[in-house]
Amino acid sequence: MHRMNRLALLALPLALAAPAMAQEAEPVTPASIVEAAAPEEWVAIAPEDLLVMDLAPDAAGRARQVVIQLMPAPFSQPWVENVRKLARAHWWDGTSVYRVVDNWVAQWGDVSEEKPLPEGTLATTGLPYASRPSRLNRPLIEEYLGNAYEGITDHRIAWLDGYADWPRTGHYADMEMWIDGWPIAADKNGEGVWPIHCYAHVGVARDLAPDTGTGAELYAVIGHAPRQLDRNIAVVGRVISGIEHLSTLRRGTGEAGVYEYRAEDTPIVSVRLGSELPEAPQFEYLSTEGESFARYVESRANRNDAFYTVPAGGVDVCNVQVPVRAAAR
Amino acid sequence: MHRMNRLALLALPLALAAPAMAQEAEPVTPASIVEAAAPEEWVAIAPEDLLVMDLAPDAAGRARQVVIQLMPAPFSQPWVENVRKLARAHWWDGTSVYRVVDNWVAQWGDVSEEKPLPEGTLATTGLPYASRPSRLNRPLIEEYLGNAYEGITDHRIAWLDGYADWPRTGHYADMEMWIDGWPIAADKNGEGVWPIHCYAHVGVARDLAPDTGTGAELYAVIGHAPRQLDRNIAVVGRVISGIEHLSTLRRGTGEAGVYEYRAEDTPIVSVRLGSELPEAPQFEYLSTEGESFARYVESRANRNDAFYTVPAGGVDVCNVQVPVRAAAR
Repeated sequence: MHRMNRLALLALPLALAAPAMAQEAEPVTPASIVEAAAPEEWVAIAPEDLLVMDLAPDAAGRARQVVIQLMPAPFSQPWVENVRKLARAHWWDGTSVYRVVDNWVAQWGDVSEEKPLPEGTLATTGLPYASRPSRLNRPLIEEYLGNAYEGITDHRIAWLDGYADWPRTGHYADMEMWIDGWPIAADKNGEGVWPIHCYAHVGVARDLAPDTGTGAELYAVIGHAPRQLDRNIAVVGRVISGIEHLSTLRRGTGEAGVYEYRAEDTPIVSVRLGSELPEAPQFEYLSTEGESFARYVESRANRNDAFYTVPAGGVDVCNVQVPVRAAAR
Repeated sequence: MHRMNRLALLALPLALAAPAMAQEAEPVTPASIVEAAAPEEWVAIAPEDLLVMDLAPDAAGRARQVVIQLMPAPFSQPWVENVRKLARAHWWDGTSVYRVVDNWVAQWGDVSEEKPLPEGTLATTGLPYASRPSRLNRPLIEEYLGNAYEGITDHRIAWLDGYADWPRTGHYADMEMWIDGWPIAADKNGEGVWPIHCYAHVGVARDLAPDTGTGAELYAVIGHAPRQLDRNIAVVGRVISGIEHLSTLRRGTGEAGVYEYRAEDTPIVSVRLGSELPEAPQFEYLSTEGESFARYVESRANRNDAFYTVPAGGVDVCNVQVPVRAAAR
């Protein structure tokens, strides 16, 4: 077989992956598990949870649309509310992507920092980044958070510190899991849960603490997950389509990776909530509470298709991307 | 302070970071530790360990040079030797970057797969990716690998499974550490050590096992560290300058992210060993055996400068980039 194609098997975004083969002899892969998931395991993303950002076309005239899924309650909700307000006010129209740093972030908003925020923008200074698990209303999660972290065998809720056989401890939290389609971290005593910075996740740029940013200046991660930002910045969403329109932008050469000249900025034509658009793109994610997702995580941690000779036996939470796909209209 | 600048503090490549302030009041940061390192802690990279790849200029006529540091012994040496042979034969001249996948890799070589390899190219089929620690000739490492993993306090050699207070276990190995400037993983029984896939690391594309690739088709990681490839692919180096010339390339839309049309490829003008070039760029890395590096790792795991309110208390090995800088000629 062509050697590019083999390496490529790993690389294909799930939505583009070849259909799983029907033959029993075919090895189980993350892609084949996702492909075989029952229709009812896919969860539609509500239009008001989608942020649709149209950048100016590229030099060759090609459209550049970036779609962001917003973080659900109880995580980062004051900032998410501000993001919805800013979108409804069409505040980002005419602003730009003005800062791009390799292996770090692409950042957008009002580079002049002079544009007034919409009336009703929530004050966020000093707000905490972690939430109380009691707000989750998720019996399963609460049970785990409340017990002694022993005997966990459900791979959807894992990375326990020294007790679980698999997978093993994270560096940035005592516990990592998925809730409502999102990777979430928690501390050992169950006092707090918080969203994670992974590739393509979107956060709120800010000044020094206790400032936490309003949500007007946003960034998307375009490199290795900067987990040190967890609990230090509000994570409000993730790019689910079009991240390449941000990750391929020329890196800024000015201070801190801000473009030196405004002509280098990438203009933002419009940012809209999906609920504002008559023809909004539709997406769905694979439920992280279902059996297919549990199998998917286990497969990600123990690749046994023909390309792999040594399964890792564990997996970084940011290497388990929650499957998201365009939904039939 | 300008909010962009604060987020940016985290982002600055070390070589571009502002000099550490002399005032005692300034917080210690990873950048200030590196800045304060003694000159003798910097290790020159030998010219024969540098691979200098000149891509064709970009659409605006700007030069695009990518510099790769090759992996030292005992890691991946048959492939590294092949890479040196291919460079000396000028084998890559006229080949191209033909495959780019977002959050995955940029891959280059001979897309036709018809170009004959130089005489003397080593057969690598079936060779192991891990090395025996006994080949390391490093008493310090051998001592750690040989003991019961208890009581480790040296942060340069850490990530021990359940014993060390800090940092905590990795997902992909029992132990992670740095040797001769490189992140390295090891298994619990000390039987093997192997190089790691982090952002910008360079590996050898291959067909299905037992094929291991020759080194003619290479890729650089341009996304979150694909650690599941560790021990499944030979890691032969890392991009130490110019990774942005690969990470910003348009993503391929053909099968597996290969460009659909050869006109989309980025031509490779030349690839040379530093030792072949009269005016080779010179680089040095911060010794991973010195005190400054130990402090740097600890600082990366416990950011306490003004931007951070919650230090992580641990750090992913791929978030501890070994400082590399251009050396004075």
